[in-house]
Amino acid sequence: MTIEQRQLIYIDYIAKVKETDDVFDTTLEEEAKKADIYRSDQEWEPMLVAVGESWVVSGLDKALIGRKKKEEFEVEVPPADGFGERDPKKIVVYTRRKLLEADVKEELRPGMVVTIDGLPAVVRVAGSGRALLDFNPPLAGKTLSYTVFIRSICTTFNEKVRALIKRRARQLAEKKDLFRFRKKNGLLTIKLSESEMYIKDFQLIKKGIANDVFKLLPEVLIIHFIEELTNPFIEEETTQEPATESPPPDVGLEDKE
Amino acid sequence: MTIEQRQLIYIDYIAKVKETDDVFDTTLEEEAKKADIYRSDQEWEPMLVAVGESWVVSGLDKALIGRKKKEEFEVEVPPADGFGERDPKKIVVYTRRKLLEADVKEELRPGMVVTIDGLPAVVRVAGSGRALLDFNPPLAGKTLSYTVFIRSICTTFNEKVRALIKRRARQLAEKKDLFRFRKKNGLLTIKLSESEMYIKDFQLIKKGIANDVFKLLPEVLIIHFIEELTNPFIEEETTQEPATESPPPDVGLEDKE
Repeated sequence: MTIEQRQLIYIDYIAKVKETDDVFDTTLEEEAKKADIYRSDQEWEPMLVAVGESWVVSGLDKALIGRKKKEEFEVEVPPADGFGERDPKKIVVYTRRKLLEADVKEELRPGMVVTIDGLPAVVRVAGSGRALLDFNPPLAGKTLSYTVFIRSICTTFNEKVRALIKRRARQLAEKKDLFRFRKKNGLLTIKLSESEMYIKDFQLIKKGIANDVFKLLPEVLIIHFIEELTNPFIEEETTQEPATESPPPDVGLEDKE
Repeated sequence: MTIEQRQLIYIDYIAKVKETDDVFDTTLEEEAKKADIYRSDQEWEPMLVAVGESWVVSGLDKALIGRKKKEEFEVEVPPADGFGERDPKKIVVYTRRKLLEADVKEELRPGMVVTIDGLPAVVRVAGSGRALLDFNPPLAGKTLSYTVFIRSICTTFNEKVRALIKRRARQLAEKKDLFRFRKKNGLLTIKLSESEMYIKDFQLIKKGIANDVFKLLPEVLIIHFIEELTNPFIEEETTQEPATESPPPDVGLEDKE
């Protein structure tokens, strides 16, 4: 099975700036520690990629097509397929007055990053009355070198749905019992228990999951997110519990993997 | 049909302080304007009451039992069944230093309301070095007089559910097509379209609706809130739309009123 457009795959990678050999990004904990870019609040594990969907830089995206599971390869990514060419027009002189207008009040030094109208810029030269600011992304103009390990390819519908849920809501996907889903005809039902209702920004997370599913699994025409709440005032010994006696059609959804 | 505990009814009322005849609350727009307590951001319409559930002061709550639709009556509510007796211990001397500690910096005058540790207090006496603050609710110790009009009594299950939804989410309940619900055995399904997902605090609103329903309609054992999203990438001329071809059991829920 070779990798095609829109497939969901897991990869590990080590990304370097070619000319300096500096590692600027990786999914591998050991490599991150070696390169001094390790962060304890990050998950160090293979990354999910929807091939050809711009989840990674385009040079890497293109290089994934046609690969096989467990394959390992290196790819050189020129600036145009990476973080873009350096644009000389994005290097701009700012006078003291313009800096104050942009709310930059501190003393500038070369190498500092300042934010102007929401955009980060690197200070290249700092004089008393003016400064030269570079709005190019730090990796613009660089040729990159990726070492890539294809870890796995999602093949079943359920593997794909679970991967897409986990991408947006890791805390749910890891507790399999919290998130149950079932597909019937074009309807995908994702069932949540009450404790999930109060996750921060959960409505936006649901929207994100739906967008990913609709784009990558076109067999899904409708998604139902079901939040289930149970009457807390009913005593436990009741014998009327419908979910155990005679389940109505939309109770007791199971992940039929 | 007489009114009983836990029934859902709609009432209008005019509430006065007995000794002064001042109207301090009402559901009637004209009366509010007369009493100079009209606010344009409020809905002037009968109020939903779950009888005996402390949605109104207990003196009024008790007086509703046994009444009939269209009945009109007056009831006198003593402090104990209204906003409580006045508690002399809640009238406290505050020194200048204690006021500053509580972040009260302005010049105090009798009648002013200040907030201390989140509690409002009325300034009774204000001297140069100290002030007498009254933490009793403004209507504590007052005998109240309610004129009440019983407008209607919710009788069907659907009327009750719609009333409880409207109480928490007026914007939804008024557009009947946005909120569809159906009961089957002990399961109440409330179906929402995508545009409802982003209502502010919607997860808490759903929780509130569920609490009210579980308390007042004990025949509901489980509630499913279903949020339905439709694949925007599928072209309209597709013939595979499952909701029109062969509906799966939990699609196309209708309010079967």
